[in-house]
Formats: sequence, C-alpha cells, structure tokens
Amino acid sequence: MTLKISFQGEPGAYSEAAALEYFKNGIETVPCLSFDHIFKNVINKTTEFGLIPIENSLAGSIHRNYDLMLRHNLHIIGEYHLRVSHCLMALPGVELQAIRKVHSHPQALAQCEGSLTRLGLEPVIEADTAGSAKLIRDKGDLSAGVLASKRAAEVYGLNILAENMEDSPANFTRFLILSKNSLGLNPPIDPDEYKTSIVFSLNNKPGVLFKALSVFALREIDLTKIESRPLPGQPWEYLFYIDFIGHAQSEVCHRALDHLAELTTFQRILGSYPKHKIEYTK
Amino acid sequence: MTLKISFQGEPGAYSEAAALEYFKNGIETVPCLSFDHIFKNVINKTTEFGLIPIENSLAGSIHRNYDLMLRHNLHIIGEYHLRVSHCLMALPGVELQAIRKVHSHPQALAQCEGSLTRLGLEPVIEADTAGSAKLIRDKGDLSAGVLASKRAAEVYGLNILAENMEDSPANFTRFLILSKNSLGLNPPIDPDEYKTSIVFSLNNKPGVLFKALSVFALREIDLTKIESRPLPGQPWEYLFYIDFIGHAQSEVCHRALDHLAELTTFQRILGSYPKHKIEYTK
Repeated sequence: MTLKISFQGEPGAYSEAAALEYFKNGIETVPCLSFDHIFKNVINKTTEFGLIPIENSLAGSIHRNYDLMLRHNLHIIGEYHLRVSHCLMALPGVELQAIRKVHSHPQALAQCEGSLTRLGLEPVIEADTAGSAKLIRDKGDLSAGVLASKRAAEVYGLNILAENMEDSPANFTRFLILSKNSLGLNPPIDPDEYKTSIVFSLNNKPGVLFKALSVFALREIDLTKIESRPLPGQPWEYLFYIDFIGHAQSEVCHRALDHLAELTTFQRILGSYPKHKIEYTK
Repeated sequence: MTLKISFQGEPGAYSEAAALEYFKNGIETVPCLSFDHIFKNVINKTTEFGLIPIENSLAGSIHRNYDLMLRHNLHIIGEYHLRVSHCLMALPGVELQAIRKVHSHPQALAQCEGSLTRLGLEPVIEADTAGSAKLIRDKGDLSAGVLASKRAAEVYGLNILAENMEDSPANFTRFLILSKNSLGLNPPIDPDEYKTSIVFSLNNKPGVLFKALSVFALREIDLTKIESRPLPGQPWEYLFYIDFIGHAQSEVCHRALDHLAELTTFQRILGSYPKHKIEYTK
C-alpha cells in the first residue's frame, strides 16, 4: 500500500520536496489548498500523514500552524529540516539575458533580493513559488523568470538558469510530520535521539516561567526551542510551546512533565519523535 | 513647537488613532509608507517620535518591528494599548441594506467574520483599513461598506452604520513610542511604574535560558513578555526579547542586567518607559 501525505501548495512546492526527502519513496503526495485542509485530511484518514512547515531559520515561526496544532488533536511523529535553495528558472530555450521580471512568493523574492538586484531583474509578487512556475508555463511567457525549487522546474518543465539564488545560505525550513497516532519509545533507540514538543499555559504570577523551566533544568533536559503565543480571548496571557531533547515516555521526561503539571493551568504533549540531525556549514 | 510623530499607514489608520490618544494634543501625525520609513524619520530627526505596533492580543507579535528595533539604535520611551474596535461605514446616505461588499485589511475582515456572515456581507481584501475608506470615498461606491477606525470615518467623511463589529472584544494592539533619546528614571515616579524592554542572545548550552531568567526571578522582577526570534545567519540560534517591570537605572534592575551580561553573548536595553495600565473587562 502506498502511504499518502498531505502538504500545502501546488505540486513542486518546497513542502512537497520535504515530504519526498523525508519519506524517500513509496509515498503519494497530496496537494492541499490550505494548512486547515492538511489537518482535515489526516483527521478524516484521507491521508495517513500531513506535513506542515513550522519555522524558517530566517523568517521565524509559522504561527498559524501552532494554532492549528492546538485546535486539533494530531501527533507529531517526525521532523525534517529542508535546506531552502531557490533556483532561477524559465521556459526551455529562454536565456538569462531575455528575462526582465521574476515571479515568486514575497518571501522567496526577499531572500534573493541581492541576486535579483545584481542581475537587474524586477520582482513580481505571486501567491506561491510552485504556482509561479505553473503560471509562466501556462502563459508561455518568454520574458519571465521564476524563483522556485528544483522540483518545481521538473514538474512544470522549466529550465534552471541559476541555482542558490538566495543571499544567505543559512536558509532552512523545519517541517513536522503529523499523524492520528502517537509514536512510542522504541527501546533500541536512545531517548536522547528523540525530541518532544509540548504546549502549556501558566498562571500569570511573577517567576512562574522560571519555575516551569526549572523542571527541565533540574533534570538536565536540553530545551531546543521556546515560543510564546497570545492566548485567544485573554489579552496579554500566553501559551508556551517548548521543544526538548528526550521522549515523553522516558522516566526522566515523564517525571519532568509530571512536575510541570503542578505549575500549569493547561498542558499537552504534541508528540515525541526522532530528531533530525542537520550539518550546517557556512 | 508642535511635536511630530511618524506612523505607518494612511491618515485614519489605527496607528494614527493610537498616536492621538497617547499624546492627547499638540502633535502632528506624519503618515509613512512602511515601518522602515518610521525608523528613518526618527533617525534623521524629520519627526521627534515614531509609533510602531508591536503585538496584537489576538494575532501575536509584529516580528518585522522587532527586527527593525534590533537594526536601528532608537529608544522606547512609551507604550500604548489601543482597544481595536472596527466600525462598519459607508458613504453618507447609504443604508446598511444597500451594502453588498465590505472592503478592509485581511486581519480586520477575519476579526469581524461572524458579524459579516450574520449580515450577509461579502469581504473584499484591501491593503489597509484607512486606505479602504479612502478608496470607497474616491470611487463614490454606493454598494460598498468599509471596516475601519472611527477616526477613518471622520477623515474620509464616511457615515458609521455599526460599531464594535469585531467578534471578540479582547482585541488590543500594543504600540511602542520610539525616540533618539532614552528616558531617565524620574525620581518622583516609582520604578515599578516603568517597564523595560531588552534583547539578548545566549550561548547554545543546556539550561542557559533558565539561568538567564534566574537573574530576574532571584530579584523578584516580574517578566511581562518573552519572545524568541531566529538569529539571522545562524540557523536555530535565537534572540530573546524580554519585557519586565522596573527601570533599567533602578538598583535592582541594574544589578539584574549586570548579572545577565555574565550569561549573554549580546545584550541591549531597548528602553525603560512608563507602563500603560489597561483595564480589561470581558
């Protein structure tokens, strides 16, 4: 049986590239119009998994997806860091010199601002990267370039004129893989090879966040991320999203979460999943 | 001399309303095309002050402005919490029954989704709220409504058909007032009547955020906000933005910041300013 995985965007989107790199093979990618649609597909069992972007190393967190994880009861079962590399592409036979305008998502255009200026190319804002590739293919526009993934060039039959158009190579997007079922601690794997994501809220008292972090510090559990979000309907109260190294079912993490529950007004484990190691070289 | 204050948007924008409520009178508001433009105006002394939105109680932080505060060396000298209340308005003489479509910024339309659905009105996305009021005035469109501030109705001569269109009354935007000069501790004022905003980065070692928060907790300094942002060019390393109660020049806060400097790789005080008390009733 082929596993199905929902992603947001057109075929050739960076999310689809991440899904293919994560699962390697034997999967069918299912494009969705919105992030909500991904959650619905996993809840309805239309697809086994969903893949969502959660943060970019330059642009920060995708807050909409934190809100959706809170609203829906899915489990994170994996993470993947995709190196975002924008290619400049055009219709086959079109030379770089013939291009005047470059179409893409505002974030991709911003990330390639230096390269575009050096080449004297004018940016044109579109809704997404792969959608821009589709648009230029459909219109047969011979004076237009597109910034999108290598995969988008394959999908829409465009020709890559330049790779690595982004001004900073430190451009990664972290994706989460969501499922209806949670992932247990698999004994041969060291708990330190897992990451756990949780969300909680606290009483608004002085020092309460410090106390909450102490449950991890006292047990030498390493935090890899902390994020705060406003609590809807309660001005200036916050939800905290924390990622830490370890599996929620390991004894030390189980005790830390039990201790944390003494301090929180609400607490949920979003998932424990094998951590993805990335090598980053400048 | 009239003090000038830069804000982003068209005349009648919520930012302009916040500037007028904060300074009360004797000021001249200067509309800017972008947030960058506000910072430039204050640096060049084109205007004495700049006013920027920093967070909304429903939508979260405006990260662009955190990034700009880091890049430029201005000081926060005040804060203001504006209750965001969207009015439905149209050209004079137009009745509610005549309206088919409602123009506004996507966030305002989303915040009034329930009210618009109940009234059977179709949302139309525009770049901003006050700009939508200007557009309908200029076009003389008799079938269009606009969601914008009460002030926008005054500025563009539109007629308010309904107030408080937003679905949740817990809708506040916090603004910061920026200046070239910092604000000293004014002795008759209790340091606890001030708030201080700082930004810092930490070595990526286990427990280091816990240690950083301990410098405040050990001195019973109350944190009102913590926000993390990716450090540009260094994937998965973060800057922390913290607001706490107290003035950086008071002895206890001065000692806490001195202690913090032992732990941080970078640290800056963005400003100490009188805190704005808001009463919130559901």
